[in-house]
Amino acid sequence: MSEHPPLTEAVRLPSAAARDGAKRIAVLGAGSWGTTFAKVLADGGSDVVIWARRREVAHEITETHRNSGYLPGINLPANLRGHDSLEHVLAGAEQVYLSVPSQSLRSNLASIRDILPADVPVVSLMKGVERGTGLRMSEVIEQELRLDPARIAVVSGPNLALEIAKREPTAAVVASASRDTAVAVASVASNDYFRSFVNTDVVGTEFGGVLKNLIAVAVGIADGVGYGENTKASIITRGLVELSAFAVAFGARPETMIGLAGLGDLIATCESPLSRNNTAGRLLGQGYGFEQVIAQMNQTAEGLASVGPVLELAESKGVAMPIVAQVGKVLEGTLDPRELAPHLATDSDEPQAE
Amino acid sequence: MSEHPPLTEAVRLPSAAARDGAKRIAVLGAGSWGTTFAKVLADGGSDVVIWARRREVAHEITETHRNSGYLPGINLPANLRGHDSLEHVLAGAEQVYLSVPSQSLRSNLASIRDILPADVPVVSLMKGVERGTGLRMSEVIEQELRLDPARIAVVSGPNLALEIAKREPTAAVVASASRDTAVAVASVASNDYFRSFVNTDVVGTEFGGVLKNLIAVAVGIADGVGYGENTKASIITRGLVELSAFAVAFGARPETMIGLAGLGDLIATCESPLSRNNTAGRLLGQGYGFEQVIAQMNQTAEGLASVGPVLELAESKGVAMPIVAQVGKVLEGTLDPRELAPHLATDSDEPQAE
Repeated sequence: MSEHPPLTEAVRLPSAAARDGAKRIAVLGAGSWGTTFAKVLADGGSDVVIWARRREVAHEITETHRNSGYLPGINLPANLRGHDSLEHVLAGAEQVYLSVPSQSLRSNLASIRDILPADVPVVSLMKGVERGTGLRMSEVIEQELRLDPARIAVVSGPNLALEIAKREPTAAVVASASRDTAVAVASVASNDYFRSFVNTDVVGTEFGGVLKNLIAVAVGIADGVGYGENTKASIITRGLVELSAFAVAFGARPETMIGLAGLGDLIATCESPLSRNNTAGRLLGQGYGFEQVIAQMNQTAEGLASVGPVLELAESKGVAMPIVAQVGKVLEGTLDPRELAPHLATDSDEPQAE
Repeated sequence: MSEHPPLTEAVRLPSAAARDGAKRIAVLGAGSWGTTFAKVLADGGSDVVIWARRREVAHEITETHRNSGYLPGINLPANLRGHDSLEHVLAGAEQVYLSVPSQSLRSNLASIRDILPADVPVVSLMKGVERGTGLRMSEVIEQELRLDPARIAVVSGPNLALEIAKREPTAAVVASASRDTAVAVASVASNDYFRSFVNTDVVGTEFGGVLKNLIAVAVGIADGVGYGENTKASIITRGLVELSAFAVAFGARPETMIGLAGLGDLIATCESPLSRNNTAGRLLGQGYGFEQVIAQMNQTAEGLASVGPVLELAESKGVAMPIVAQVGKVLEGTLDPRELAPHLATDSDEPQAE
């Protein structure tokens, strides 16, 4: 347990040593998910310091226990504080969690490489693959920090941030090549409303969080056209088949894909009207073109950008992804959204095995 | 292709022989699901006669192409006609579909045993188990009609009737011990908005349709308490694990449970605000007691009645069903619905494998 410098002289921080057994945890990134996860860790009893790029956000978190830009109306615990200095946040940290935009991860890692405490677990809270390289977040971390994979963990699951910030009961998966690391992280990332299960399948846990966005776009399209629960449930069910086939071709275990980080995250994302990918799909289903959808949305819908790269990767492994392929055709404007019915498509008119 | 007697002399029916290759199909039961499925068959090109217990319903279907009591606003095709005589409906039928209330199936079967055409497939559209015996619908059919299981098929999947009646794209599973029978039925039960896939796992296909109701009650409870998509997605994901374990213990194949008749039906039922089981759960989640819920609902919620029998069967096979068990406790009044969090429950405080 080591001391860390206070954010300002004016703020009196509780001493880590005063909290018996509390871990000192660093979270990098004060967006809605980073802040929510920092709250989960603090509500589990840890002393958490979160890094915010902007000093005013760091101050607001420490002084008023709010992050009004990202989590309006949510009170943050007193044992969660903010700081805008990476050195301050990382000093003495016993676990380091990363929640920065996936496309800026590599440059952020370069800034912390030389100040990262030795031998502590590094945990990715991010979902995505790096543009250009197609690498998963844990792979970028391994490469850029030159870390042993046994030190790296990833967290995924049906985890809509705002619901967790409201203390709704939620389960997640912590995966690491090292079971010990997964257990150490899961022990800290658990409290009375948030439970972390452990898994050693990092590939499956990460790919679930990426691929679900593509299926959520398809479900959004069906929704926008006006189709109901039968169509959506069929797309989710057949979507699970194709995302599992993809992930397994890259080394994931099938059991992971029917668990919380696969199916669980898929259902939560497809059913949430707040999901960006779902919203993008809904606009497509209502007849807006790709360019119009991009223009209407303030934030990126990760799923739209991933369609091309994922289809290329799937082809390289000989994996069929009929739903993602149909979404691609809707984006190109070569398929009427009302014709999106991947669960009806077969190669022949004869009845097929399921 | 054989002629069948017209419903009344006044109505001129198209001759089956005039429709090249059209099959003559009988559907017994003119509720919302029986009528919808008869429409699916007729829209696939078959000549369909549906048996309605009440003569006025049969007349309305034949004369005005409506079943306003069960499918308000839906136009039925001209090649779907109604009749109130079982003899008339069954005479010359090449396939027979059953959609009567599950608890009156046995008595209905007794009435048709001696007039059923020889060697035609008998298809269950029903979801449920018989009270008292605990038998699945296909088992009651086999027993009461003394049929070879190879002649019996079952249909299941994410199939909310009203959406199909509106021609929304839908997929279903036709299962029979005989693949040939499943293919023959699936060929007839397909059209441009409804596709039937074949499977030979009758046990899994039927149990999926029964057990999903119990999980839908749990999701309804979470909804009624006010929890969001994380909690619901976790309950569905963990619910799939326990309904698969149950069905597999009774001989189902695990693949069936992650298909349309397992997962697909589960998601559609859990996400439909119209589902009776979901509604019953929601009332429980809002704090109403079991007796009040029963009193408020006009129709039976199958899931509430099945909790006890399913838990007994599960125990006899040593299958753990924590979600169903928690629903049972809410029904007994021994668990506060706000404490329903089966996805957080584990045997120890240590992190558990997923």
